[in-house]
Amino acid sequence: MNNSFKEIAAEIKKAKKIVLYPHMHMDGDALGSCVSLCHVFRGEGIESYVYIQEDIPDNLKFLDNGYCTSDEEKVKNADISMLVDSGELKRIKGREDAFNSGKTSICIDHHETTAPFCDFNYIDSKAAATGELVFELLNELGAKGDSVTANALFAAITTDTGNFQYSNTDKLSHEIVAKLYDWGLESSKISIEIYENYRLERLKLEAEAMSNSVIFGGGRAAITTVTQEMLRETGALMNETESIVDNLRSIRGVEVAILLKEEEEKLIRASIRSKEWFDVAELATAFGGGGHKHASGFTSHKTLSETWEDAKREIEKRLDL
Amino acid sequence: MNNSFKEIAAEIKKAKKIVLYPHMHMDGDALGSCVSLCHVFRGEGIESYVYIQEDIPDNLKFLDNGYCTSDEEKVKNADISMLVDSGELKRIKGREDAFNSGKTSICIDHHETTAPFCDFNYIDSKAAATGELVFELLNELGAKGDSVTANALFAAITTDTGNFQYSNTDKLSHEIVAKLYDWGLESSKISIEIYENYRLERLKLEAEAMSNSVIFGGGRAAITTVTQEMLRETGALMNETESIVDNLRSIRGVEVAILLKEEEEKLIRASIRSKEWFDVAELATAFGGGGHKHASGFTSHKTLSETWEDAKREIEKRLDL
Repeated sequence: MNNSFKEIAAEIKKAKKIVLYPHMHMDGDALGSCVSLCHVFRGEGIESYVYIQEDIPDNLKFLDNGYCTSDEEKVKNADISMLVDSGELKRIKGREDAFNSGKTSICIDHHETTAPFCDFNYIDSKAAATGELVFELLNELGAKGDSVTANALFAAITTDTGNFQYSNTDKLSHEIVAKLYDWGLESSKISIEIYENYRLERLKLEAEAMSNSVIFGGGRAAITTVTQEMLRETGALMNETESIVDNLRSIRGVEVAILLKEEEEKLIRASIRSKEWFDVAELATAFGGGGHKHASGFTSHKTLSETWEDAKREIEKRLDL
Repeated sequence: MNNSFKEIAAEIKKAKKIVLYPHMHMDGDALGSCVSLCHVFRGEGIESYVYIQEDIPDNLKFLDNGYCTSDEEKVKNADISMLVDSGELKRIKGREDAFNSGKTSICIDHHETTAPFCDFNYIDSKAAATGELVFELLNELGAKGDSVTANALFAAITTDTGNFQYSNTDKLSHEIVAKLYDWGLESSKISIEIYENYRLERLKLEAEAMSNSVIFGGGRAAITTVTQEMLRETGALMNETESIVDNLRSIRGVEVAILLKEEEEKLIRASIRSKEWFDVAELATAFGGGGHKHASGFTSHKTLSETWEDAKREIEKRLDL
């Protein structure tokens, strides 16, 4: 059972120090939600930090604003530890002890798999983004929204709805964004930071991967690779490959798309996506990996061409079911 | 001076036959706006068509729904000719006579350069999409929105706001989309139709154009081309090039992006985009074209390489101001 935002707001108002925990491999929703909360808390005179232990992805660095810290000393003795956009301690690996040292714990999340385990929980798997729940909480807190808050929440919502394209996007997503303009939202500036800030090297790599792509399974599947040679040629980095599999999926008629990343000669990482009905979590599991129905991955210790053949065969088998 | 939507609605209610004219090189806003109007008109018992003389771009074909015609006979003797998303007869070349044969003319548009010349005009350059104006007009008409109308207007708004990223996107854009859900909007289905429905040929062309792109102006400008040879090589069509200039603009540090499309040896069409401050309408005007501050175009009757040099020179001049 969820607590009410009223109960959670009351708890927050009693606190002198609150530390926020975005999940590892942070995304726009996790970091944007945390930053907006941290900004409002500090405005209320509460000492607050977003505690992280990894680099912020390039296109989300603008969110930091001095709220993020990796300093263990700073986050000690919190009145509240707040888990944002995840509901499992294993998703804040390396930070669990700090989290558990908070006097009270709060979880705000929208993942389906999240089971409430904190002292206070608000988990709504119907919300398109945790940022939408944070918006409601901030209103309950009586926050006077400003552009920092609005921009961070917009970053949360636009990234987790795939720019308002994914099926989780609904009326409320657009209503909340409309209201964020009253707080000073700079949607164009934020969209440029997030979506128009790619290195040329990255785009050249994406282009090469698309040029090399192969359609199979009667037009219902697409596969491509990123090799070490392609990285050398284009100057791109392996962590700049995340759009490639989405680009493959955007091909007409393609239901399932797979990208094979050659980390080493016999270390291949696969990213898999599906559009509507294909269960790529099940496919990944067959290769010892895992994920969600529409997004998953696995690691292979065979060569690139062996992995390519294995993946094609397993996908074709499932397309023919 | 604009007429009011009330005046325009009154005129529409008197009509027995209305023909809608999207501009040539139709886009989602032109076609989506026309289709939503046509659907509502037919629902009111008005004979109505969207008159076109070119192929509908592949990812907008779902909008047709039997409303579009190229049959000159069908569009004769209209009570109203309605120009949608453009304000110049030259943008409906080949259809001017039919347009002028309508007893009354109406223009609904959001382009800055549009000067009212129809009997009734509603031109608002602050609107992010003509679809937003059409939404207001439909409300004035008392239309009971349904999913066909909602999906067509969503297509109009999502494409002209660049998926809610462009600087024209504002509170009203999101408020209108939120209201479209009440009419039965299927936003995810439409987003897949528009954004995940690309022919492989198109994506291979985009890849080649990106591979050939050149950065200049100290990293602040990017240019690329689509030649007839590239179309032959990839099997893509010239109407499948619209994402290319946006891809160029998404390069970090690039303020202005330009795509040169070789229609014939001495017929080059340029699409220009800017990110923040560069006024591409002014640039296009210098070449006899026009558009908005962040999106414009022009036609050149020089060769591709001459146009390339001209464009580079004019852009560099303006970057150095």
